Amino acid sequence: MQLDLAADVVTLTEQLVNIESVSHHEQVLADAVEAALRELPHLSVVRRGHTVVARTDLGRGERVVIAGHLDTVPVNDNLPARRDDSAGILHGLGTCDMKGGDAVILKLAADLPEPSRDLTFVLYEAEEVESTFNGLRKLTESDPDLLQADFAILMEPSNAGVEAGCQGTLRAEVRTSGERAHSARSWQGVNAIHAAAEVLNRLAGYEPRRPELDGLTYHEGLNAVGIRGGVAGNVVPDECVVEVNFRFAPDRSTAEAEAFVRDFFDGFDVTITDLAPGAMPGLDRPAAKAFVESVGGEVNPKFGWTDVAQFTQLGIPAVNYGPGDPLFAHKQDEHVPVEHLTRCEQTLKEWLA
Amino acid sequence: MQLDLAADVVTLTEQLVNIESVSHHEQVLADAVEAALRELPHLSVVRRGHTVVARTDLGRGERVVIAGHLDTVPVNDNLPARRDDSAGILHGLGTCDMKGGDAVILKLAADLPEPSRDLTFVLYEAEEVESTFNGLRKLTESDPDLLQADFAILMEPSNAGVEAGCQGTLRAEVRTSGERAHSARSWQGVNAIHAAAEVLNRLAGYEPRRPELDGLTYHEGLNAVGIRGGVAGNVVPDECVVEVNFRFAPDRSTAEAEAFVRDFFDGFDVTITDLAPGAMPGLDRPAAKAFVESVGGEVNPKFGWTDVAQFTQLGIPAVNYGPGDPLFAHKQDEHVPVEHLTRCEQTLKEWLA
Repeated sequence: MQLDLAADVVTLTEQLVNIESVSHHEQVLADAVEAALRELPHLSVVRRGHTVVARTDLGRGERVVIAGHLDTVPVNDNLPARRDDSAGILHGLGTCDMKGGDAVILKLAADLPEPSRDLTFVLYEAEEVESTFNGLRKLTESDPDLLQADFAILMEPSNAGVEAGCQGTLRAEVRTSGERAHSARSWQGVNAIHAAAEVLNRLAGYEPRRPELDGLTYHEGLNAVGIRGGVAGNVVPDECVVEVNFRFAPDRSTAEAEAFVRDFFDGFDVTITDLAPGAMPGLDRPAAKAFVESVGGEVNPKFGWTDVAQFTQLGIPAVNYGPGDPLFAHKQDEHVPVEHLTRCEQTLKEWLA
Repeated sequence: MQLDLAADVVTLTEQLVNIESVSHHEQVLADAVEAALRELPHLSVVRRGHTVVARTDLGRGERVVIAGHLDTVPVNDNLPARRDDSAGILHGLGTCDMKGGDAVILKLAADLPEPSRDLTFVLYEAEEVESTFNGLRKLTESDPDLLQADFAILMEPSNAGVEAGCQGTLRAEVRTSGERAHSARSWQGVNAIHAAAEVLNRLAGYEPRRPELDGLTYHEGLNAVGIRGGVAGNVVPDECVVEVNFRFAPDRSTAEAEAFVRDFFDGFDVTITDLAPGAMPGLDRPAAKAFVESVGGEVNPKFGWTDVAQFTQLGIPAVNYGPGDPLFAHKQDEHVPVEHLTRCEQTLKEWLA
């Protein structure tokens, strides 16, 4: 498989989409990306697993990371890519999440031999599966120096606009307990599902915090995302588990988020099962400011968790900026507007000229 | 396989236990029971499936049904029967539920050629599985005349005491609905699990009714026996289902029980999934009164649902009276006290002499 970096960004997106790369099966695509980048004499290329890093080294005053993942969710009868020229849309798995963004990255790599800022391009594996496999996360551990930069752009779909930072996410199990009994003699037991009423009452009464950070309004959320309990149709149950998901603004640390949830469910048994930090928007940093000015338009907060948080861990401010509407990510009818692809490419080229 | 009706009631229980008869596999035991009863010239025997009915026809003023089921729950490393003579206990699957009771029935059939009341012995299949298979229920439909009587005794384990009538049981699903959304933008959805708070609040605040009927105090119960909801760890769920079980005193009809539950959960979507009537104790009937006087001791209400309700449907008052502690039914260490077996046999023989 060969990629043609001289093709236009839409054709290049199509080529990337048509090299299937469901998570854990990125090798063929990573090989093609690596081979294409190695043809470019102004870049030094490093390969780690199925993650490819390519860097300029022009001694500029600032360095910017531009990153995108190579993998997709499973195929859902939506390959190969299909162009609808009259609607100006490219359909197919990965067009939105996020091979459109990857195509923009490859166009920048090929067409900007002398960018105004040094660039580090990262095309990585396994973003759509458990974080232990995530290529960007692995890189932050194996090669933190390779990622050092003043600013990072993650080309996750954001309607070709800037979504700054991201909220953190915490998952917990809130458990009530009781005592089993035959339901025909229920007064001999204690019903753990009835005891969960208070857990749900607190959730139903939750008032979200909406802090303003760097001029952006975040919006927290605390939700039951699952509930289970019950032994049999004739047994008073002795356990009920409410799974909750707390999405928290990036001004809270993970420790503060955990303390909030433990306090919120005070009196109940709380087990934290997943916890990932948010990312501050960092719009006060010069590189970020310049980027936002160059892109223009409204800057929005990112509510969902994305890999921008990986950069926060390294102290690098980061934003999401990429083609495609995130609402169509992971959908059977995934697609990207051609105009998003060309606009992202143009805007970044102007900023880096 | 052959049964020896001349053996004592404990030995006969042992013989019955050692002919395995898990539900749907009662044929060998039913054949042995039928063959033994056909040896007795004072009885006329009818076979339906693996259910055996044997009747005296002496023209007495009253007729009494004495019934027991032949099947057991699955084997759980508790066969063959094991006697512990020092403790006076017989161990093994079915000793308690309810081959001890069946042995008493067979002893009465063999030893009372001229009982003071006409007798109808019913030994039936498939009590431990869905009611469509239940041999007694089938008989009420196929041969209601065969079951006609003034009084019925069901030899379910009741600690060799009288437990009168039984409570009815109703199962329902109470459903809340909402609107899915990504949990990172939860305000765009409506959380169906949070909406279930009110369902659990009502359950937690439920006050059971304890009506006195024929001098016995029943005790109702309304419990969540299961709860489920949730789509994925990052989705605001659009449905939550609370499974409830209502155990109602026998002065309520099934229609009244259903109306109570629908009213209790007014405003929620309620689906009735199972509904079985209770049985009035019927202790005002002459045959029942005479039986209770003869047995002596305290009469208790039956809280759990049993097949006595089948007799209620035919207008026949019925009580539970059998050897064994029901708490050991369906347990690996199922057992019956020898004293319960001999006491039940003796008491019934005296009452029928």
